[in-house]
Amino acid sequence: MGDVQTTGRAEWESVSILPVDGIGNVAPGDPLEQMISDAIAESVGELRWGDVVVVTHKIVSKAEGRLVDLGTVEPSAFAQDYAATWAKDPRQVEMVLREAKRIIRMHRGIIIAETEHGFVCANAGVDASNAGPDMVCLLPRNPDESATRILGALQGRFFPDAEGEDRPIGVIITDSFGRPWRNGIVNVAIGIAGISPLADYRGQLDPDGYELRASILAVGDELAAAAELVMHKVAKRPVAVIRGYERQPGSPSGTGQDLVMPEERNLFP
Amino acid sequence: MGDVQTTGRAEWESVSILPVDGIGNVAPGDPLEQMISDAIAESVGELRWGDVVVVTHKIVSKAEGRLVDLGTVEPSAFAQDYAATWAKDPRQVEMVLREAKRIIRMHRGIIIAETEHGFVCANAGVDASNAGPDMVCLLPRNPDESATRILGALQGRFFPDAEGEDRPIGVIITDSFGRPWRNGIVNVAIGIAGISPLADYRGQLDPDGYELRASILAVGDELAAAAELVMHKVAKRPVAVIRGYERQPGSPSGTGQDLVMPEERNLFP
Repeated sequence: MGDVQTTGRAEWESVSILPVDGIGNVAPGDPLEQMISDAIAESVGELRWGDVVVVTHKIVSKAEGRLVDLGTVEPSAFAQDYAATWAKDPRQVEMVLREAKRIIRMHRGIIIAETEHGFVCANAGVDASNAGPDMVCLLPRNPDESATRILGALQGRFFPDAEGEDRPIGVIITDSFGRPWRNGIVNVAIGIAGISPLADYRGQLDPDGYELRASILAVGDELAAAAELVMHKVAKRPVAVIRGYERQPGSPSGTGQDLVMPEERNLFP
Repeated sequence: MGDVQTTGRAEWESVSILPVDGIGNVAPGDPLEQMISDAIAESVGELRWGDVVVVTHKIVSKAEGRLVDLGTVEPSAFAQDYAATWAKDPRQVEMVLREAKRIIRMHRGIIIAETEHGFVCANAGVDASNAGPDMVCLLPRNPDESATRILGALQGRFFPDAEGEDRPIGVIITDSFGRPWRNGIVNVAIGIAGISPLADYRGQLDPDGYELRASILAVGDELAAAAELVMHKVAKRPVAVIRGYERQPGSPSGTGQDLVMPEERNLFP
């Protein structure tokens, strides 16, 4: 039950991405952990040891009240000028500037900014789609805390007997980011609990004894990207469960912050 | 057979990532298409309509003879100076410079360069790991052509009756790239055949009638990232089959070049 049946030996090492349906509209103050937990029970039946639950940040932001009514926003003169030049909503530009810690690029109306969390993305994560008329949605204030809260609720329900050091499941909160030099956006991990977002193969040797090059894999981002394959952008399917992913043995839990390039190694200031 | 069995309604829309084992060492001139095809038959049993076969570029490069014996490489004075400063192998630096169309960053021994294909990555894709003693491996000369050749062989074997317009399967060739501002490397698509690497949701509306923001998804890269979840870096498992991914209806086939940001939209020259 739940395992992939194949005709060959791939069966016990395959990974499944299971869509979770049944989460309706989410509003500020909604009991999101309960809603996710119920939807998983309904769609997937249960969680198993090693499952990774991937959640689109949008429903987290909404439940946490990270919505802004543009009617309450007074744009600065700078935001008004910029918006007028590039046919943007000045109140939305104002919110992008408020959410930005640092502007990376402002070019033809596109703003790439670093957020307080250290994420570099379009519009500092401010998003008008799926937010409601004249509303914008901001990133969760602390996506790692949000992930930890969801993890606690899911663990309490599906693994009530797990002890302190046990990490039966992981939780990843995602957003979709653009990338320099590459077309299109991809889902990445912005909040994480219960699992390491990095798999470190440094020091391991290839069959010829050569140390593996640049071999820290951002598995948190790869899991986020994989989940998107069942979410689709317009499917209103904000949650997926990844089953069968084999974590690097001994890897400690980490956070979404582990995926932010440390300043001293950043080649793109 | 081959479908994920779950207790809920997720079953018919789940995506499976199936590892393909049994491809041994690959050497220049080896019949790679045949080797991949045999390994799939052995590990997965058969290919089904809609499957996406993901192949690590390393075995493609090797089969195509894109290996360079560093003993034959005469480093330039510049390569020698740079290598001496940063404790690198001057012959390897020379090969990186030869493979580069444009240097993006040279910093403390790290070279980020644009390749002839338009990919921006560390060392212009030149890699010493898993290449053999004193050898480096280059990217395939034309990964889209390589993907098309593999697609043809797999289609001939598993879908001998497919007609011209039918695209029963897709093939993706991957490498793992670093990203500005984010820690760790992720698998991305560098060659593609039979499937579109972009899912374009522009013009589609959210439930409030707002057009979806920045909504071209790089599904080629998301499929590449998903496949890595069963490949792992050191597993010597260079192929995976992704089953159950629902393509955007009507999307035409594309290439790995579609994932290269067009120059006029590149904000990071």
